[in-house]
Amino acid sequence: MSYTKCWLAYAPMGGCHRERLTLACMEAGDVLEAARDELRRGLEGLYGASVETAAGHGDITLEVDPALEGEGYRVTADSGRCAIAGGTPVGVLYGVFALLRAVQLQACPWEQVRLEEEKNPSSCLRMLNHWDNMDGSIERGYAGNSFFFREDAVLVDEKRLTDYARMLASVGINAIVINNVNVKNAATWLITPRYFPQLRQYTRILGRYGVKLYLSVNFAAPMELGGLPSADPCDAAVLRWWKEKAAEVWAELPLLGGFLVKADSEGRPGPFTYGRTQADGANMLAQAVEPYGGHIIWRCFVYNCQQDWRDVKTDRACAGYNAFMPLDGQFRENVTLQIKNGPMDFQVREPVSPLIGSLRHTHIIVEFQIAQEYTGQQRHVCYLMPWFREILDTDLKTRPDNGTVAALIRGKGNGMAAVANTGDDENWTGHDLAAANLYGFGRLSYDTSLSPQQIAWEWLRQTFGQNPPVEQTLHQILMRSWPVYEKYTAPLGVGWMVNPNHHYGPNVDGYEYSRWGCYHRASFDGLGIDRSPTGSDYCHQYAEPLASLYASAETCPEELLLFFHHLPYDYRLKSGKTILQHIYDTHFEGAEEAAAFYDAVLHLKPYLDEAVFARLEARFAHQKAHACEWRDVINTYFYRKTGIPDGRGRTIYP
Amino acid sequence: MSYTKCWLAYAPMGGCHRERLTLACMEAGDVLEAARDELRRGLEGLYGASVETAAGHGDITLEVDPALEGEGYRVTADSGRCAIAGGTPVGVLYGVFALLRAVQLQACPWEQVRLEEEKNPSSCLRMLNHWDNMDGSIERGYAGNSFFFREDAVLVDEKRLTDYARMLASVGINAIVINNVNVKNAATWLITPRYFPQLRQYTRILGRYGVKLYLSVNFAAPMELGGLPSADPCDAAVLRWWKEKAAEVWAELPLLGGFLVKADSEGRPGPFTYGRTQADGANMLAQAVEPYGGHIIWRCFVYNCQQDWRDVKTDRACAGYNAFMPLDGQFRENVTLQIKNGPMDFQVREPVSPLIGSLRHTHIIVEFQIAQEYTGQQRHVCYLMPWFREILDTDLKTRPDNGTVAALIRGKGNGMAAVANTGDDENWTGHDLAAANLYGFGRLSYDTSLSPQQIAWEWLRQTFGQNPPVEQTLHQILMRSWPVYEKYTAPLGVGWMVNPNHHYGPNVDGYEYSRWGCYHRASFDGLGIDRSPTGSDYCHQYAEPLASLYASAETCPEELLLFFHHLPYDYRLKSGKTILQHIYDTHFEGAEEAAAFYDAVLHLKPYLDEAVFARLEARFAHQKAHACEWRDVINTYFYRKTGIPDGRGRTIYP
Repeated sequence: MSYTKCWLAYAPMGGCHRERLTLACMEAGDVLEAARDELRRGLEGLYGASVETAAGHGDITLEVDPALEGEGYRVTADSGRCAIAGGTPVGVLYGVFALLRAVQLQACPWEQVRLEEEKNPSSCLRMLNHWDNMDGSIERGYAGNSFFFREDAVLVDEKRLTDYARMLASVGINAIVINNVNVKNAATWLITPRYFPQLRQYTRILGRYGVKLYLSVNFAAPMELGGLPSADPCDAAVLRWWKEKAAEVWAELPLLGGFLVKADSEGRPGPFTYGRTQADGANMLAQAVEPYGGHIIWRCFVYNCQQDWRDVKTDRACAGYNAFMPLDGQFRENVTLQIKNGPMDFQVREPVSPLIGSLRHTHIIVEFQIAQEYTGQQRHVCYLMPWFREILDTDLKTRPDNGTVAALIRGKGNGMAAVANTGDDENWTGHDLAAANLYGFGRLSYDTSLSPQQIAWEWLRQTFGQNPPVEQTLHQILMRSWPVYEKYTAPLGVGWMVNPNHHYGPNVDGYEYSRWGCYHRASFDGLGIDRSPTGSDYCHQYAEPLASLYASAETCPEELLLFFHHLPYDYRLKSGKTILQHIYDTHFEGAEEAAAFYDAVLHLKPYLDEAVFARLEARFAHQKAHACEWRDVINTYFYRKTGIPDGRGRTIYP
Repeated sequence: MSYTKCWLAYAPMGGCHRERLTLACMEAGDVLEAARDELRRGLEGLYGASVETAAGHGDITLEVDPALEGEGYRVTADSGRCAIAGGTPVGVLYGVFALLRAVQLQACPWEQVRLEEEKNPSSCLRMLNHWDNMDGSIERGYAGNSFFFREDAVLVDEKRLTDYARMLASVGINAIVINNVNVKNAATWLITPRYFPQLRQYTRILGRYGVKLYLSVNFAAPMELGGLPSADPCDAAVLRWWKEKAAEVWAELPLLGGFLVKADSEGRPGPFTYGRTQADGANMLAQAVEPYGGHIIWRCFVYNCQQDWRDVKTDRACAGYNAFMPLDGQFRENVTLQIKNGPMDFQVREPVSPLIGSLRHTHIIVEFQIAQEYTGQQRHVCYLMPWFREILDTDLKTRPDNGTVAALIRGKGNGMAAVANTGDDENWTGHDLAAANLYGFGRLSYDTSLSPQQIAWEWLRQTFGQNPPVEQTLHQILMRSWPVYEKYTAPLGVGWMVNPNHHYGPNVDGYEYSRWGCYHRASFDGLGIDRSPTGSDYCHQYAEPLASLYASAETCPEELLLFFHHLPYDYRLKSGKTILQHIYDTHFEGAEEAAAFYDAVLHLKPYLDEAVFARLEARFAHQKAHACEWRDVINTYFYRKTGIPDGRGRTIYP
């Protein structure tokens, strides 16, 4: 299947030519060769110039400078001369992409490019988690099937894998997990000789672009593969089995990064089965992989998914903190806990998980989701960088100086991960604009100071070339897309008003009487979850002043009001509107804005490639209609609950 | 897989022996041989006597008496002598089963059996519709997988098929459709040489017990099998294709009864695609099969399954009548319309479909469902004969004398069909007590005058032998089971408060915002559908006085009140209770009664086979718990809508 080049299109830039550029590289090696290839491809594409290797000094020089951080780079360009240095070859590669990005943003002749940029990555781990199943399907995949697996085989499509690795490296992503965290069936066998040859190819192809391969593993592998009677992490036989397994795996895959583990979560096996702690489980694996520099990433998505909806005391939001905070400091050096950005599960709006700020002696990765499971499934546009920006800027007040999430994920063993949004669709991400989330997540993980506006602009320019109408319209749409999506879906942070299982489309009571612990408690007297001290007191998992801020409806940020409080429909927001009228207004507005997106996209027809326009037109048309469905279902639901019509007399279906 | 004998167990009856009985049969043939075999098996099992064939006269004589109706029989027994006559060999076979039934009910020594019974079937067509898919699954199957199909092959398990045919014949069922009405994939090929050899075996095995084989066919078969560009029933090429197909099919399967067709229904192809009527479609097929005595059964389940929930004018209940009434009298002699008992889809309570009474010049089969799709899915006990009895007794007032459903389905080309509830489970029907519905439907279709009490008693005696504690307890449970299930599920005839797709368990708004046309419109001001003249006026599809009866909330039968009317929660029922309090009360009562069923069944442990008890105990325990789930979800939903607590202060979860 053919596919687009996304933001690596290197479309020719009008008005700036030079026939020949020389390129000198001080050292050799696979990664540096990839850097040279990319630079050549980029400059040739952009300028139409031929790029030739020079022996000594050239117009451009690439060099490793051990004075820089390993994945840091320094690029200086002026008057047609450019020097790119990196702390390692990977740093050089990142510098190359930085230059190519700057060239496109400046859009001027080569001699006029001016750049003075030195960057070090904001965090060490910048990962993607693919939830690809070995049958070829993708859990929460909205862009076709897997390009890693099909019918229990590992595919080695060197061209596509290479292009994917180039995309990842271009934005600073340095690790991927290729298989679903729910490890079942054939995927359990990934750490056996059945798949080593293909995986070795993956480590080679990815490694050339500084991307480490990780694998999700099944905690019960000693039973399923080894025939042991248990997977008890405190059983010496189990540890021995994992030690032998690690020796075997790293002998075959010396470049492997490590394992990702979803344990005791939504039915997956884990240490709780044996009365052990999550630390017992993670440390046992960490001990096994330690001799090989292996790394264990352990997910914190542990909660009771068999809750009784009648039970209003139990609060799923509290679960992660309660399970992991008591273990702070007990994890081995090569363990990192992976914590979802919010305490629930990737809703369009959640508070930041308090666990992120409270762990002080434990490595952490904050997990985001660019697979748009709850944010329109890549049929609605929802550019997530404004949301991630807010998360990174949130100060959890657990450090004397800077307790922002961005600060907390600095340093060794820490980082950011995202559930990936790619598949084998022609455009990689289903919705063409969803690629902005892949690009943006990578950029933000490498440089947590970037603004969503900047990222969107970079991505648009590199994807569509110099195309002012497209750039302007789509930039506005991208920047409005998350607030608009939030408007026409679940209100004021309450979340979860979606169809169960597939999670697409409105269903207000969809999870209300379920076992999943995600309720909105909409009743005759109001809606929202009381997480203040009169309720589950989840708010006191936060440090002060956040705890008090969230504990009072008066001070709670309004976008999270119903996440923390159960309030009457006639409660007045700061706007002076009642909650009910706010729901009506935002839903009318959101649907109107979605319609305006569609109209704006229609105007881009003359400026877009035919196939790209056709894809965009279809998705925006669907979004426009589906936003009306959201609006009407939500509004009717609350009208039926309250009997109070819209204050402005708009149509709410009875 | 082994399986139980259900009501053909012929368990030895204590206290009545005779060493030897002689059996004389005047004529030969497959069906008579089956009748002799069954009589021998029955009497040997029950009495321990050997049954030997006699040349001239015996203790028992079997004979064909052309003075009787074809499937009628006459049995006389007295002082150890018995004569069984039938209008055809099938009538004789039915007489044999009548004798064996009577023997077990009388439970006395052979010489004391006294019987004087002459019966003719109430209707000509007494069918089962199996919704078995060729992959082996069963749509709406709750008793395992198909015993007809597996992995696109037709299974020929002669033993099980024979035993199934015996069960069918024992209750008077004379036709089955073995494949799902949704004909897709391999099933389209059932009318091709790929499957003729196996199907011929079916016609032989079933034919020995007087059961005709029918097949569901794909209306688009001329395209899918024949490569024609259309399936337009008015296209001469299409008719020609079907004529050739019929010639081929009946040459291979001369005993085939005919075809069942689901057209223009829930996405299936049909004549509407070509702007033709349902009569055009049915008559074209009827013309093709007519030379071979073939019969077309054409389903009337035609409605718009793409409705907009906002559209309160369109009423799915009206659809069947509107589509078919204008065509009355236009169908060929060998066409029968199959009409579901109610206008919606097998809910626990619906009015009788007005189409049943209004068609005057068209053959009809009334379709029931013993597969418990909406009545507990064979995990809850729900004996449906009391419900079917009410339906048969409903007088639609469209005939001067007797307009009951039972009267309307008499005569040539008419009858009753049921969606079957069997599968390859050991006990055939998943829940052991669900077999009472299979037994009961057959008995009722042969003799529409039978009482549910009588049928339950017959079934219990033949299934469990003489076992007074079991008989007494289970008879009470069976007779209460439908009213109890109705109590704890959707109230007052409104229906549809189930989880979408699989239809199990409560979900009050599950279909409320869907495209399926099945809504309850529960709002702040009340609930129910206005089908009176102020609403869809569906009630005027009925003749007077029914139309007026249903049109007024004051006269509408209360069990259908919310089917016909949207009423406030404080509307007073004849009991003096408000609708809301009625909902609360019935839900508390229903759950209590389900708990009482469980307790009662526990007491049967000493009197039941261990495996049977274990199965019953597990199902009743589940029902008890699941009835509480129903109670609580429904009660909480309406409490949240109204804010009005239970008048008796019982717990309703907030």
